[in-house]
Amino acid sequence: MTDFAATRALFHLPDGVTYLDGNSLGAMPFAARERARTVIEDEWGELLIRGWNQAGWMVAPGRVGDRIARLIGAPAGSVTMGDTLSIKVYQALAAALSLRPDRRVVLSDSGNFPTDLYIAAGLLRSLGSDYRLKVVAPEEVAGAIDASVAAVLVTEVDYRTGRRHDMPALTARAHAKGALAIWDLAHSAGALPVDVAGGGADFAVGCTYKYLNGGPGAPAFIHVGDAHRDMALPALSGWMGHADPFAFAVDYEPGRGIERMRVGTPPVIALAVLDAALDAWNGVTVAEVHAASIRLSEAFIAGVEAECPALELASPRDPLARGSQVAFRHPAGYAVMQALIAGGVIGDFRAPDILRFGFAPLYNGMDDVDRAVAALTCILRDGSWDAPEFHARQAVT
Amino acid sequence: MTDFAATRALFHLPDGVTYLDGNSLGAMPFAARERARTVIEDEWGELLIRGWNQAGWMVAPGRVGDRIARLIGAPAGSVTMGDTLSIKVYQALAAALSLRPDRRVVLSDSGNFPTDLYIAAGLLRSLGSDYRLKVVAPEEVAGAIDASVAAVLVTEVDYRTGRRHDMPALTARAHAKGALAIWDLAHSAGALPVDVAGGGADFAVGCTYKYLNGGPGAPAFIHVGDAHRDMALPALSGWMGHADPFAFAVDYEPGRGIERMRVGTPPVIALAVLDAALDAWNGVTVAEVHAASIRLSEAFIAGVEAECPALELASPRDPLARGSQVAFRHPAGYAVMQALIAGGVIGDFRAPDILRFGFAPLYNGMDDVDRAVAALTCILRDGSWDAPEFHARQAVT
Repeated sequence: MTDFAATRALFHLPDGVTYLDGNSLGAMPFAARERARTVIEDEWGELLIRGWNQAGWMVAPGRVGDRIARLIGAPAGSVTMGDTLSIKVYQALAAALSLRPDRRVVLSDSGNFPTDLYIAAGLLRSLGSDYRLKVVAPEEVAGAIDASVAAVLVTEVDYRTGRRHDMPALTARAHAKGALAIWDLAHSAGALPVDVAGGGADFAVGCTYKYLNGGPGAPAFIHVGDAHRDMALPALSGWMGHADPFAFAVDYEPGRGIERMRVGTPPVIALAVLDAALDAWNGVTVAEVHAASIRLSEAFIAGVEAECPALELASPRDPLARGSQVAFRHPAGYAVMQALIAGGVIGDFRAPDILRFGFAPLYNGMDDVDRAVAALTCILRDGSWDAPEFHARQAVT
Repeated sequence: MTDFAATRALFHLPDGVTYLDGNSLGAMPFAARERARTVIEDEWGELLIRGWNQAGWMVAPGRVGDRIARLIGAPAGSVTMGDTLSIKVYQALAAALSLRPDRRVVLSDSGNFPTDLYIAAGLLRSLGSDYRLKVVAPEEVAGAIDASVAAVLVTEVDYRTGRRHDMPALTARAHAKGALAIWDLAHSAGALPVDVAGGGADFAVGCTYKYLNGGPGAPAFIHVGDAHRDMALPALSGWMGHADPFAFAVDYEPGRGIERMRVGTPPVIALAVLDAALDAWNGVTVAEVHAASIRLSEAFIAGVEAECPALELASPRDPLARGSQVAFRHPAGYAVMQALIAGGVIGDFRAPDILRFGFAPLYNGMDDVDRAVAALTCILRDGSWDAPEFHARQAVT
């Protein structure tokens, strides 16, 4: 069993806080703080414009992308960084549609994170009234893939319940029907073993501020499969994706492979912070982290179900059918979460009634599980959102 | 005459460096370095997910946008921040085309920064073969605006020569022909007095890492004119532009006014750094900075023309017809610039033969002009790119 004492020491967590919201914003690695200082003081401050070459700013999107690639089962040279997940969804979907010019349907599901649906709807509207976004229930996706579908756009792990799609099976089903598969790995990267290359994903996108701990608003990533990297004409054809950006040619010529998925000037400071945050993965595998996440989440579910009968499990019971978070329903979920947060146990709430707890074993341990169960028990048993015993218990732990 | 000693004290400049490349990447304000430390250590580290509300991360794009608005003559509530300039060009142009659905031509000029042309070409290609990007010479833009033109997309200041368009006149001409005007202010914001509202610009976009000193890859801005802010349906319809992002509705409903131009999760750390950098403008106006820039650039041109006859002025001679940079041509321009940089005078080179020197009076003074002229004189007079006398002179100044 992996000992995570070494990785826990890499992160700052505030005194008195039990942090179970790394599925929304990961904790701060000390290395990220230090790297921000050096990229600003030593690189920007001292090198100024020379930092683009001398400090490697220009190649940072691909270099950091290669580090992400190793965590999602993608080959080197297949991932680049920048922008936000919304923009990366747009890029992936636009590219997919250009590769299936005779098809007009994009298939997604109602458990997808809304921005994926919004971005898809906006893109399709601009392409013309014959394009259509079809949104079905998560369990109906496989059956809804037919010869009209250009691309299946789904998020592997449901942001509310943690329900996990079978990524290899859905990808294979899409390919069998001639459709492309675009995977949003927002709640997967750094949480679950993902094999985008082995599973044949055509495109994969994700954010880095959750389980990858890149900081608030950290840059997103995009992976393009081998078959498409030199094919798709980018919709967002910015100068950094040009074959020779500093030739300043009037006409756009797409760069080689994944380079063409770059758009504008890279977010140097944020990329440096993320780069340092990824050092936490140097001595640990995603599989080890996932195994630890299952131990924590199983203990949490057992504890909550034993002590808090008012909470109804909203996540799949099979740990392999969910991501690294556990969701419970409660009619007063919002108030319960506010009480938890006031008492130092930070999870989050998703309307209408979901309490969400993320487990990030790089810095979460069994003591976090115990404290969260104890806090929930107090709050629900005393029927009060301001249980003194709970605060007292928090104060001594 | 404004005394810039106070603003110069706000910036770090490396020892022995004469920095005349603020038109590419502005120098580091000490406040930016300090703010990076606090947003990471005190906000991300201590508040974690609570930073979105408690530290104002969620409203930062509009709050910082209002600070940019004051520098470009735009009203509060008309500017928001995020992404890159390339993305903002895409948003502005897509919105403009949706407001002129019966027109199919986008007009730009060959002096525009290439990413604007690339982004426009990519967008138009996706919209269909009847759309066309028409690129004319800068001086031919006004005459080329006709009833087929949906939008004029131009950069006020040419990135190579500094040649400046007459923004109010071109905007009026576009409106007279029923077209919309989109202004790229990359080389204007923080350098020249701009009056986007008074001039009637329909959209304005820009970056913040040049004269606004936001750091490498700092977030971009977009301004939308009063008439359009609640009208245009965003093409990049991300969740942060939704009317109620945390309702997590399946269908997109655009936010109020400029809010709909937000896309994904805001780049919190980079926005905080930029926010601090903007403090340099607290005691000085853009008009004062522009006046100082003219003094510096006029002295530079006079010095170079007196001492370096091999250099040919590539910028307009009238200071009101150019931006805050001066360009000279030389057949061996690349080598001359490398020699300058090796000797500590940093400008930049733009193919095929342009030496570019930017003047940022917040931190540049007449001593920078004198040193740059002296260095150029040595390099060109001695016919050597490694003139010992030049290095000796640099060492004692």
